[in-house]
Amino acid sequence: MGSPVVTMLTDFGLRDPYVAEMKAVILSLCPNARIVDISHMIEKFNVRMGAFVLASAAPYFPKGTIHIAVVDPGVGTKRRALLVETNEAFYIGPDNGVLVLAARKQKIKHAYNLTNKRFMLSKVSTTFHGRDIFAPAAAYLANGFKLNDFGKEIKDYCIPKFAKPNLGKDGLVGEVLHADDFGNVITNISQDDLDKIGAVRDSKMKIRLGKKVAQVRFGSVYGEARAGAVVALVGSHDFLEIAVNQGHAARHFGTRAGDTVFIELSR
Amino acid sequence: MGSPVVTMLTDFGLRDPYVAEMKAVILSLCPNARIVDISHMIEKFNVRMGAFVLASAAPYFPKGTIHIAVVDPGVGTKRRALLVETNEAFYIGPDNGVLVLAARKQKIKHAYNLTNKRFMLSKVSTTFHGRDIFAPAAAYLANGFKLNDFGKEIKDYCIPKFAKPNLGKDGLVGEVLHADDFGNVITNISQDDLDKIGAVRDSKMKIRLGKKVAQVRFGSVYGEARAGAVVALVGSHDFLEIAVNQGHAARHFGTRAGDTVFIELSR
Amino acid sequence: MGSPVVTMLTDFGLRDPYVAEMKAVILSLCPNARIVDISHMIEKFNVRMGAFVLASAAPYFPKGTIHIAVVDPGVGTKRRALLVETNEAFYIGPDNGVLVLAARKQKIKHAYNLTNKRFMLSKVSTTFHGRDIFAPAAAYLANGFKLNDFGKEIKDYCIPKFAKPNLGKDGLVGEVLHADDFGNVITNISQDDLDKIGAVRDSKMKIRLGKKVAQVRFGSVYGEARAGAVVALVGSHDFLEIAVNQGHAARHFGTRAGDTVFIELSR
Repeated sequence: MGSPVVTMLTDFGLRDPYVAEMKAVILSLCPNARIVDISHMIEKFNVRMGAFVLASAAPYFPKGTIHIAVVDPGVGTKRRALLVETNEAFYIGPDNGVLVLAARKQKIKHAYNLTNKRFMLSKVSTTFHGRDIFAPAAAYLANGFKLNDFGKEIKDYCIPKFAKPNLGKDGLVGEVLHADDFGNVITNISQDDLDKIGAVRDSKMKIRLGKKVAQVRFGSVYGEARAGAVVALVGSHDFLEIAVNQGHAARHFGTRAGDTVFIELSR
Repeated sequence: MGSPVVTMLTDFGLRDPYVAEMKAVILSLCPNARIVDISHMIEKFNVRMGAFVLASAAPYFPKGTIHIAVVDPGVGTKRRALLVETNEAFYIGPDNGVLVLAARKQKIKHAYNLTNKRFMLSKVSTTFHGRDIFAPAAAYLANGFKLNDFGKEIKDYCIPKFAKPNLGKDGLVGEVLHADDFGNVITNISQDDLDKIGAVRDSKMKIRLGKKVAQVRFGSVYGEARAGAVVALVGSHDFLEIAVNQGHAARHFGTRAGDTVFIELSR
Repeated sequence: MGSPVVTMLTDFGLRDPYVAEMKAVILSLCPNARIVDISHMIEKFNVRMGAFVLASAAPYFPKGTIHIAVVDPGVGTKRRALLVETNEAFYIGPDNGVLVLAARKQKIKHAYNLTNKRFMLSKVSTTFHGRDIFAPAAAYLANGFKLNDFGKEIKDYCIPKFAKPNLGKDGLVGEVLHADDFGNVITNISQDDLDKIGAVRDSKMKIRLGKKVAQVRFGSVYGEARAGAVVALVGSHDFLEIAVNQGHAARHFGTRAGDTVFIELSR
C-alpha cells in the first residue's frame, strides 16, 4: 500500500507523553505509516474547535489518508468509537461529532462502530482510547484490513448541534467554531447556509457577535478593506470567517469558540 | 536495518532552532531514520519530568527504537554522556538520571560512556551536546555500529533520588514526577513499592500531598468515583497517579513536580 | 531522488490547521518528501527572528534540502515570492528577508521570482501563500523540476536592514535577532563584522544593550565565567550571542528582538 498517511488531531498538548504513545502504537503495528500532526493544541474538550481544525486541513491530504481525531470528553462512558469512510479518506475517533464536519464535506459512505477487540491493544484503559483503540484501528486499517472487520455499520452517528446552524426568519443563527492565532473568527455557517438567505458577493450583511454589531459587505477580501475594517468571507475551509483587516477580530468582538453569531442581510 | 525509529525528548521548547539542529544532524548521518518527537516541552532542567515522560512513552515503541533524551542542566561539566542498552531499546543522553526510569522498566543490559570522538560532530560545543554528541551517536547506532565502539562500559551510572521512593515505618515517601495537562499528578511510586506496604485493590489509603490529605480507595477507576472525588491508581506508566474525577488534581492539592507525597494504608 | 528533505518554518503556531494544510499539499504532490519542522512558534510577523532561526538550523541539514520559510506580513501585497539556490540548499518564501541570513551563509547562486502558475495550487488565495504557492513550489522542486521553470531569475531580492549591522567610528551598531528560551540574546553581528573592529579572543568589549552596559571578554565560554557573569561569544550560528552564565541575559539586560545593540572594544 505504499506509505499510508495517518494524521493525528488531539487536545493532549505537547508536554505530556500521550501523543507519543499513540505514535508508538501506530509505528509498532504499521512501521511504514507516515504520521502527520494536524494539531495537538485543540483546547481541552473543545469538540467544535477540533472538528473545525480537522475539517479545514483534511481536504488537502492525499486520497486514502487516515485521520485520527481525539477530543473526547466522554471517554470511559458509553459514547461509541467510530470509523467513517468518505469518498476521499477515513476518519477514526469518538462518536461525539469531532469527525463530522470534515467527513460530511467529503460525503460519508459508511460509518462503523469500532468494537472488534482484535484491532485494539490487549488491555484497553478507560481513560485513553486514543492509544488503546483509535491508534491501533488506524494502523490495522493502514495495513489493509477491511472496514467491516472493525465492527457493525451504523447510521445514527452523532450530528452535533454545532454542525447545524439555524435558519431563522430574519437570517442565520450559528456559532463560533474557532478563533485562530491571527484573531480570525470562524463560524459554523457554510456557503450553503448563506445561499439559503440569498447572500451573494457584495451583499450587505449585519453581523451580531459578542458585544458588537457590524455592517459588512459579504465576500470582501482583506486587500479591499481599509485597515481596521471588518471583513466577512467564506474561506477555503468553506465556513464564514469574520476578520478585521490588519486587526484581531476575536478581541474586536470580544468573542470565543462556542459563542452565538447572528447573520442577517440588510436589504 | 529498515527504517530505525529515533525518538527525541528535550526541554528545548518549540521556538528555538535547537530541536531542528538535532534532527538535521540525525538525517545527515542516517537519511532513513524515522524521527518521532516524544516531547520538547519538558520544563527547563526538570530531569524528573523528562524521566517520567520518557518512561511513560518508551514501552509502546517498536523493539530496537533509539531514544534520545536531553534534559541536561550539567552540560559542559564533567557529567558523563551515556548509551544504555535494554532488552527492548537503546537510550542516549546525559548521565543524570533522565534515562533511568525508562531503561530500568525494560531491564538494563549494558551502559556505555560515550567518549569516542569518531561518533561526535567534529566540533563539540560546551553548551549543546544534544546536537554534537547525542544526535550523532543515535545516528551512528542506527547505522549499525557496535555498542562497545562508542566508549567503555560502565556500571556506576547515576540513579537519581527521584528513582528511589522511601519505605518508612508508616508507609511510603515519594515525590511528584509530573502534573500533566489534565491535572493528573504522577508520583515516583510504582506498583512494586505499593506491594511492599501491602496495598491491594480497594485498600483504603491516606495520601498527604501539597496542602491536603485525602482518603481514597486504591485502584478505583475514574468511572467508579463521583465527580470531584480523588482517585488513586497505577496507570499504564506503572506509577501511582492521583487524579480528581472530572477535576484537576494538581490544583486541588496545590502541588507540582518535585513535591513530596506520603502514602499510608488506613487499616 | 531518494527522499528529499523539506523543512518548514512559520509563525503559524500549533493550534491552527495552517501548518497541516501545507504538509498535506506537499505530501499530495510529493509523497516521499521527508518533512521536518524547524519551528512554527516564530513570533507573528517577526521576520528577523524567523531569519535567525532558519539561519541557525539550516547548515546542519543534508545537501539539497528544501527549506520553506513563511513569516509573511506582506502576504497579499506586491511583495514577490522567492526561490533561492545556494551551494548547499534551496530556500522558498516571501521576498522580505526571511530567507537571506540562511542563504547568504551558503553563498547564493541564483534567485528566482515564483510566478509560474503551473507550480501553484489551482486557486491561490490572497492570505495563504504558504499553502497555495510555497508548499507546492517545494514539492515540485523536490520532484525534480528545473529552477528556471518556476519564474524569472532576479538579482534585486530584498536585503533587510537587520542583515546589515553598521560599522561606526567607535564600534558596531547591530540589533537583537532573537532571545531564546534560555534567555540568550542573539544579535545580527557576525564574526566578519567583529573582525572589522579587530575583536579577537579575549578582547575587552563594551556592550550597550537594553537598559545596561556590560564589560566582557570576547570569546569567553560559559564554563570560564562565574555564575551571573555576562559572556559574549560567536555561537555555531555565527552570530554574536550575549549570555549570562547560569542566568537569563534577556531579562538581565531588559531586551527583546529588534532592540539596538552597541559593541565597542575597550583598549
